[in-house]
Amino acid sequence: MPVAAEPPAIVLVRPQLGENIGKAARAMLNFGLEDMRLVAPRDGWPNPAAGPAASGADVVLENARVFDTVGEAVADCAHVYATTVRKRGVTKPVVTPEAAAAEIHGRTGRSAILFGPERSGLETDDVALARAILTVPINPQFGSLNLAQAVILVAYEWSKGQDLASPTAEDLLPPAPQEDLDGMIAQLEAMLEPKGFFRPESRAASTRRTLRSLLTKPGWNHLEVRTLRGVLSHLAKPDRD
Amino acid sequence: MPVAAEPPAIVLVRPQLGENIGKAARAMLNFGLEDMRLVAPRDGWPNPAAGPAASGADVVLENARVFDTVGEAVADCAHVYATTVRKRGVTKPVVTPEAAAAEIHGRTGRSAILFGPERSGLETDDVALARAILTVPINPQFGSLNLAQAVILVAYEWSKGQDLASPTAEDLLPPAPQEDLDGMIAQLEAMLEPKGFFRPESRAASTRRTLRSLLTKPGWNHLEVRTLRGVLSHLAKPDRD
Repeated sequence: MPVAAEPPAIVLVRPQLGENIGKAARAMLNFGLEDMRLVAPRDGWPNPAAGPAASGADVVLENARVFDTVGEAVADCAHVYATTVRKRGVTKPVVTPEAAAAEIHGRTGRSAILFGPERSGLETDDVALARAILTVPINPQFGSLNLAQAVILVAYEWSKGQDLASPTAEDLLPPAPQEDLDGMIAQLEAMLEPKGFFRPESRAASTRRTLRSLLTKPGWNHLEVRTLRGVLSHLAKPDRD
Repeated sequence: MPVAAEPPAIVLVRPQLGENIGKAARAMLNFGLEDMRLVAPRDGWPNPAAGPAASGADVVLENARVFDTVGEAVADCAHVYATTVRKRGVTKPVVTPEAAAAEIHGRTGRSAILFGPERSGLETDDVALARAILTVPINPQFGSLNLAQAVILVAYEWSKGQDLASPTAEDLLPPAPQEDLDGMIAQLEAMLEPKGFFRPESRAASTRRTLRSLLTKPGWNHLEVRTLRGVLSHLAKPDRD
């Protein structure tokens, strides 16, 4: 029986600074990822520097599991990606975060994404465990992604395929009915007529068309049209002071 | 003559920590963005904490321009996005970083993306300047994106379309630069002020915002703005007959 794709595990391989582990946890949770796995963290685990850097993503750190080797960390995973910025002497498919996210959503079984140590990145043996290389396309003149930034881009792409990724859509009002707009245009034209705006007479029709086009373009809703009619009414009044 | 879409300007509005400005510069340059603009940075500029945090993205910091107001910072920009995580009482289109990037690549004229101060985010007046809200869809149970993370997601999305940059030239004129629009709004406000439109005083700021939002929505081009300024000039004249 096929099982729906689970959120991928984020595997930090030999991470150095606790602060970066915390930042990675924060990056993950922002986009709904909670399964963090640590392989031989340099300074042991737990690490007191991780908590403050996680800015509240404590649940990720509390549930993080520690392993001695990459192999053990991904033992339950069907699809393993190795994140790297450098070109490697290995022949594996290379995918972007976007393509990896699409693959993960389209598959059954758990996926894991490996991230190497801050300074050196993954070693060849780590990469050998992976089925594909995940690379973020980057400025060839300036490639300087840190660990948490790489994690956030991968998590962000994954989140796009989730239902939680719903933008706070505001309900936009539809454009006002044509008759509302016509009323406003008529009001404006009546004000402009005595000011000589439509002269010479030979150009009056074209000027009216231009004005109508301008005022049709915005697609103002009925509240906006009402406000604008208030503006016009005020302009027609004598100055108060 | 249509001009290909330029890379967007990243506008940091009242940023607090120099370190975060440096991190934002690093995030930008990773994905090929170099036009950084600072509005009233809290600790002045240059800021000695920015350089080390930029990890080599010095060119972005060196060329960063400083402005007193958001209006001045985006004066040459035709499309302004306000980045915000919170739901706002404004009716503007809400787009994801992905959708914003697609729009920017499909348009002519320069775009600007506003990012608010670290703690508080953009104020309502800043948002009023923008044509659309840019929101990163995020875990509803844990939304904790910092400034540099928001910048990197936007820059990353933009970089994806870089090679595809609009070969299909648009015949439509781009929206007028912000300063043209500001000129028109100032003209209208000067006319409305003596008519009592902005009274009572307690509601004046909100009325001005409403008016600005209304007039920002259309995306009028410079010819249209010129026509509308002619309309306003005529309305200010005495009746001829």
